[in-house]
Amino acid sequence: YASRVMQLLSSAGRLEGKLREKTLTLDTLNPQVKAVEYAVRGPIVIKAGEIERYLEEGGTKPFSEVIKANIGDAHAMGQKPITFLRQVVALCTFPELMDSPSFPEDAKRRARRILQGCGGHSLGSYSASPGVECIRKDIAAYIEQRDEGVPSDWENVYLTTGASDGIMTILRLLVSGKDSSRTGVMIPIPQYPLYSAAISEMDAVQVNYYLDEDNCWALDINELHRSYQAAKQHCQPRVICIINPGNPTGQVQSKKCIEEVLHFAYEENLFVMSDEVYQDNVYAPDCQFHSFKKVLYEMGPEYFNSVELVSFHSTSKGYTGECGFRGGYMEVINMDPEVKAQMVKLLSVRLCPPLAGQAAMDVIVNPPQPEEHTFKQFHQEKSSVLGALAEKAKLTEKILNAVPGIKCNPVQGAMYAFPRIFIPPKAVEEAKALGMQPDMLYCLRLLEETGICVVPGSGFGQKDGTYHFRMTILPSIEKLKVLLGKVRDFHIGFLKEYSGLE
Amino acid sequence: YASRVMQLLSSAGRLEGKLREKTLTLDTLNPQVKAVEYAVRGPIVIKAGEIERYLEEGGTKPFSEVIKANIGDAHAMGQKPITFLRQVVALCTFPELMDSPSFPEDAKRRARRILQGCGGHSLGSYSASPGVECIRKDIAAYIEQRDEGVPSDWENVYLTTGASDGIMTILRLLVSGKDSSRTGVMIPIPQYPLYSAAISEMDAVQVNYYLDEDNCWALDINELHRSYQAAKQHCQPRVICIINPGNPTGQVQSKKCIEEVLHFAYEENLFVMSDEVYQDNVYAPDCQFHSFKKVLYEMGPEYFNSVELVSFHSTSKGYTGECGFRGGYMEVINMDPEVKAQMVKLLSVRLCPPLAGQAAMDVIVNPPQPEEHTFKQFHQEKSSVLGALAEKAKLTEKILNAVPGIKCNPVQGAMYAFPRIFIPPKAVEEAKALGMQPDMLYCLRLLEETGICVVPGSGFGQKDGTYHFRMTILPSIEKLKVLLGKVRDFHIGFLKEYSGLE
Repeated sequence: YASRVMQLLSSAGRLEGKLREKTLTLDTLNPQVKAVEYAVRGPIVIKAGEIERYLEEGGTKPFSEVIKANIGDAHAMGQKPITFLRQVVALCTFPELMDSPSFPEDAKRRARRILQGCGGHSLGSYSASPGVECIRKDIAAYIEQRDEGVPSDWENVYLTTGASDGIMTILRLLVSGKDSSRTGVMIPIPQYPLYSAAISEMDAVQVNYYLDEDNCWALDINELHRSYQAAKQHCQPRVICIINPGNPTGQVQSKKCIEEVLHFAYEENLFVMSDEVYQDNVYAPDCQFHSFKKVLYEMGPEYFNSVELVSFHSTSKGYTGECGFRGGYMEVINMDPEVKAQMVKLLSVRLCPPLAGQAAMDVIVNPPQPEEHTFKQFHQEKSSVLGALAEKAKLTEKILNAVPGIKCNPVQGAMYAFPRIFIPPKAVEEAKALGMQPDMLYCLRLLEETGICVVPGSGFGQKDGTYHFRMTILPSIEKLKVLLGKVRDFHIGFLKEYSGLE
Repeated sequence: YASRVMQLLSSAGRLEGKLREKTLTLDTLNPQVKAVEYAVRGPIVIKAGEIERYLEEGGTKPFSEVIKANIGDAHAMGQKPITFLRQVVALCTFPELMDSPSFPEDAKRRARRILQGCGGHSLGSYSASPGVECIRKDIAAYIEQRDEGVPSDWENVYLTTGASDGIMTILRLLVSGKDSSRTGVMIPIPQYPLYSAAISEMDAVQVNYYLDEDNCWALDINELHRSYQAAKQHCQPRVICIINPGNPTGQVQSKKCIEEVLHFAYEENLFVMSDEVYQDNVYAPDCQFHSFKKVLYEMGPEYFNSVELVSFHSTSKGYTGECGFRGGYMEVINMDPEVKAQMVKLLSVRLCPPLAGQAAMDVIVNPPQPEEHTFKQFHQEKSSVLGALAEKAKLTEKILNAVPGIKCNPVQGAMYAFPRIFIPPKAVEEAKALGMQPDMLYCLRLLEETGICVVPGSGFGQKDGTYHFRMTILPSIEKLKVLLGKVRDFHIGFLKEYSGLE
């Protein structure tokens, strides 16, 4: 009825040459798009942008700059590119540089090889949809070496436009069209919100398993069982997503824990999506990155030849932090060959991942070797980035844990701290009255009073009644110290204000 | 029942340590993925790849190389990059080159400006999801100039990962989740199969309007009305897609025709998606590119302030042919501001388009000016590419039309010929017996006998009982002549064989 009225009104308006209703409005928008949430670039980040612009235009605030610790964007935080990587990509982009004596021979060798794999020897041609063949081969060789000899078939390797693109592609295969609302996707809570956003967009069922905050955010196998059994009541869980090292939680999974997950997936016939984009970001001396694939291999052929597993990697993290290149790959194990053909067809509609990103990925998996000219510089740059990150991980944990009402698990890996914050009941009430999550109120006030932009824990998911925020450890050590000092002062003030302790 | 049996078999298998059923099979795959077809990289192209490999491995065929005329991939066909564009992107990639005297000052100026707009002045940082601000501004300025003063607001401009990405994004807003199968998307037939693929993937309704082959593939307004009214019986058409200049059909729309389409969209409240990626590819002296936006503007404020219109552009076509960079943009007119906010949220989940592609797009919209140092070289390179394309367009039409049983409309623009081919009834029967489209049989035999890879018309859609193929005009003139000669000989032989004229 309402729509009929609108129609009449609209015709009337049109006759008078007035209002014409829009075809696409919030009411007629795909509701699954409306349901999508992505906190990492959500309302708080939009607000931060507004404040930045206000400051640029000469406005005044109690601070002189906004520090964006909301997103893992290393170069934006001042991290310098790895010289060798950029040399190779520049050579590929402008091959006239091959004649330049200021570019090292080993970079030229790699660039030549990449260009040999490109149509017309140009970065400007489309690659095959799964990526440039020689780059896929380099990736497979890298995986074999990383996993100490576990075989990797280059035809199982697919280049992607950042890891996000690969994750969306695999979920689209698994989430079953019109039956989507019966397909369960198991994800950790807290999670990186690409997962929840993809699930909303595809109208699948988000099945939460909670990481154990009291145990350094470890994955607890009993919780997996609980989550799975509960979900079975209303949907069919088909896939389990794991993020290791964890985002936003920074934990590094033990080998035993990975074995348990894989055993569980085997038993319950779950497809495994292993987000391993932080595989080079491990800082805690007692932790080590174990790839899901290697662990699966070591569980024996019954497992290694049957569990369907996809692992994702990216140029955006690690020590390179090349987010803007949108490079990444996925390795697909035990996927049904017919499904693989369907996936390639789906990939082909979008033609191919960006070639510069593919080239950047190639450098990451095929870095200078000890006997090569640029090895020393490359190694220094790499160690310098990873060393600083390890120091900042430690520093962040230490300073935050010294603040009353903040508790921060060790940042064993990845690029984030996800501290738990105590929010006084009065502040919780105030937030509820304002119709916002308590940690959103907290982060908004932190932003407005200090210029520090972090993301509320509610954007990643957390146990009811607990509050967190995610901050990156990417600012320079000096800036990070300032940032953490401001967080401390803000937090103490916030507690005082709402606890009536003033 | 069948699934229960499978379950039992599977448990049994597992107990014996044998077969374990896969989670993801052709049966459990998202059926909307299965429904997707994309002929441009379809079966015939896969076959071409196999033949190429066979030749490389020393196999013999009646030809020595496969000529891929299936895809608009200019560099793969030997077209050289525009030097200035690559200089700017290389400078952005490796800013140490700013000190190199071999790079021109105007390229450095542009690179500096782009880097100023990037976080940490690095191409390695994420940009805002709609793209780098100064690049959006350059694009808006370009559009204003192209459209002789029609205003363009840079905040309506969104960078994309190639045009395909933008088209998918807009369709995802319009195709309404669970109600998708009631949303009609009007597309030309023949069409570029990204459209039909996206419609399949989103489970929307493909509403065909047929281009008029007898009238140089013009868009006929009566046909639009017919198509719309027919579709109304079973769905709600919400959006009309136009490709101008046409792909695969190569026509350039007249201003009058565009006016009619816009008037129709206005009357029927349709969202307009105007695929204008070939805007620089107009060859026929009596044709001119008219942007939908400019025509809308000239229709008066009642139209210009109300019709929702998105125009797409790309780095992949034009005279640059930079497909591998995956650059592109869309300009969005009259979109509801709330919808725009939702779109930005959706874009933000994938973070941002590749920065090198954004930089390439910037050069295209902001090329060297007459007073600048590199203008002459740039202009020469550009004219040389466009001049050769115009010559090849003419040549293709001429040679094909001299073949009995082939009729080819003038290639007024874009990069393709879409000749109609007569296929004798006997060949049609044979194809049907083999379960394939007659033009698929034709193209497969063309490939196997001559090494020429073109795409059957059935992959783009065509009137029942008519047959075509799409070929690019991208090979060099010498190679194109060889190719067309081989097509002629093949076609004559094919006719003879199946008409019993031998």
